[in-house]
Amino acid sequence: MSLRAATGKIRFRPHFKTHQSAGIGECFRQSGVRAITVSSVRMAEYFADHGWDDITIAFPVNILEIEEINDLASNINLHLLIESAEVASFLSDHIRAEVSCLIKIDTGYHRTGVDPENIPLIDHILEITRGNGYLKFEGFLTHTGQTYSAKSLEEIREIRDKAVHQLSTLKEHYSQQFPGLIISYGDTPSCSLPDPLPEVDEIRPGNFVFYDLMQYHIGSCRLEDIAVAVACPVVAVHPSRNEAVLYGGAVHLSKESWINGEGMRTFGLAVKLTDQGWDIGRKLGYLSALSQEHGILKTDGESGLKPGDLLAILPVHSCLTTDLLQSDQLIF
Amino acid sequence: MSLRAATGKIRFRPHFKTHQSAGIGECFRQSGVRAITVSSVRMAEYFADHGWDDITIAFPVNILEIEEINDLASNINLHLLIESAEVASFLSDHIRAEVSCLIKIDTGYHRTGVDPENIPLIDHILEITRGNGYLKFEGFLTHTGQTYSAKSLEEIREIRDKAVHQLSTLKEHYSQQFPGLIISYGDTPSCSLPDPLPEVDEIRPGNFVFYDLMQYHIGSCRLEDIAVAVACPVVAVHPSRNEAVLYGGAVHLSKESWINGEGMRTFGLAVKLTDQGWDIGRKLGYLSALSQEHGILKTDGESGLKPGDLLAILPVHSCLTTDLLQSDQLIF
Repeated sequence: MSLRAATGKIRFRPHFKTHQSAGIGECFRQSGVRAITVSSVRMAEYFADHGWDDITIAFPVNILEIEEINDLASNINLHLLIESAEVASFLSDHIRAEVSCLIKIDTGYHRTGVDPENIPLIDHILEITRGNGYLKFEGFLTHTGQTYSAKSLEEIREIRDKAVHQLSTLKEHYSQQFPGLIISYGDTPSCSLPDPLPEVDEIRPGNFVFYDLMQYHIGSCRLEDIAVAVACPVVAVHPSRNEAVLYGGAVHLSKESWINGEGMRTFGLAVKLTDQGWDIGRKLGYLSALSQEHGILKTDGESGLKPGDLLAILPVHSCLTTDLLQSDQLIF
Repeated sequence: MSLRAATGKIRFRPHFKTHQSAGIGECFRQSGVRAITVSSVRMAEYFADHGWDDITIAFPVNILEIEEINDLASNINLHLLIESAEVASFLSDHIRAEVSCLIKIDTGYHRTGVDPENIPLIDHILEITRGNGYLKFEGFLTHTGQTYSAKSLEEIREIRDKAVHQLSTLKEHYSQQFPGLIISYGDTPSCSLPDPLPEVDEIRPGNFVFYDLMQYHIGSCRLEDIAVAVACPVVAVHPSRNEAVLYGGAVHLSKESWINGEGMRTFGLAVKLTDQGWDIGRKLGYLSALSQEHGILKTDGESGLKPGDLLAILPVHSCLTTDLLQSDQLIF
């Protein structure tokens, strides 16, 4: 991902919400990364404490955290997302150190952000922020999360091209007034496409650091690219219904599920654990159900599993699994 | 719940996996509780460190934790679940202090446990454990988790009656050989029924300490009985689609969802936060989607919400929400 960004002369600002780990952050630093993305003020504080000084909080500003935001802004290069006149006014009244402001644009995911055609609102936000010397307008940011529902790489490409076009149009519209504006673009499925992204100034993928079953099924990665697994012991075996019970439940893997290639709702894929990691060539079955601590593994007939066997579970959504287990408990 | 158990002369061994909090444990202690249930060795260690000395780990023994199990067994009255000859043999070979053993019976949930008609397997397990002076056979335990899928209180009653009958039959079968055997029965929906449970010796409900939306929809509690909520700030408002974005996502509430009374998949119910807690009379809408940190609140038309407003979110599954936020961050 780092190489892909460098080839396109795009700033690589990886999202650290997936791993939330200072240790893994160091791997990024060694590959030349200096600017990062996080999804909460608390995560920004954690990485600032670990020497990161150029951080985008890719989440709408929570005005109740203004004190923490001001502390961060006085210590690092902080980038914030604005998408309403209310929050722009609040920041204008309360910000006490320089921050870069990105306007969050809704390019079709419809989770949050400003409609790209709502020029009056964008103008209004810019009018408010322009009055404050601390608020520096940096550009437009989007997260095309709708790529997670795409049925093909072609559909991901269409989503991306439309979004990039919308942001480019805005950049062009405001460039004379604000020279040096940037387009910040995210999401792992889009950024995993091999195509160049000529109009984009910055990319913020996060999940690619581990990938997961969801990304595999979307087509963003191969099964062998998944770089995280949870080691779960077998605690019971039920051959009459081809099931094993694992110590590995919703508090370890999260309740995120996905429909696998065989049309089955799954919470993880079990493969053989080895001395070197795990062997995706030796699939042991899918998790079909989770409760708080139990995972139910559907095996293919005679599995030979017995209590005490340790299996590697590839998670459906590595961000949530990592958040639950904290990085130092996972296998790398 | 404490009174209900006392009235029926049933031992009340509440499941502490829902709150996982020593502080809340003290409330139970003040109401006379001395014996508890947990769902992992780690949780047993935590509560043993906080003065609890009679603990059932209601999860199939993970033989990889035998060292921790032996440590616990030498310090407290530990109760373990056995459901296979393999684990019985392993314990017989490795246990180094006295533990009480309950045979886990599958009374229809089909998650794990021994079929109640599989007398040969039960005999085999008992033969193995009888050879070891540390392994004391205590009785039969079940968790009728299928009550969570029940469509009416009558259906919960049927599930419970059938399960209790199966356990009573087993108790009768083995009582001459093992006098003083107990029946340990669990799950909040069953234990929330007002009926007496004459044949049961012990109940292990856990979720009732907080209840949640799932229990409300099952009929185990009223909305006003839900005793936990997450305070979430509004970070953006989208009146054109009757939505507000909250800082409250899958890492706070979990991805557990439920179909509410209006047929909508929901991840939580937003109500008005007040100085004294929250007001269930002032519903603000249901959460319709969650990502890692974002929650999407569907509001009923003109909500009047604005960034910075704090709402109380009643969770779908309080056990998972509490596990994510840890008890000290929640509102009580």
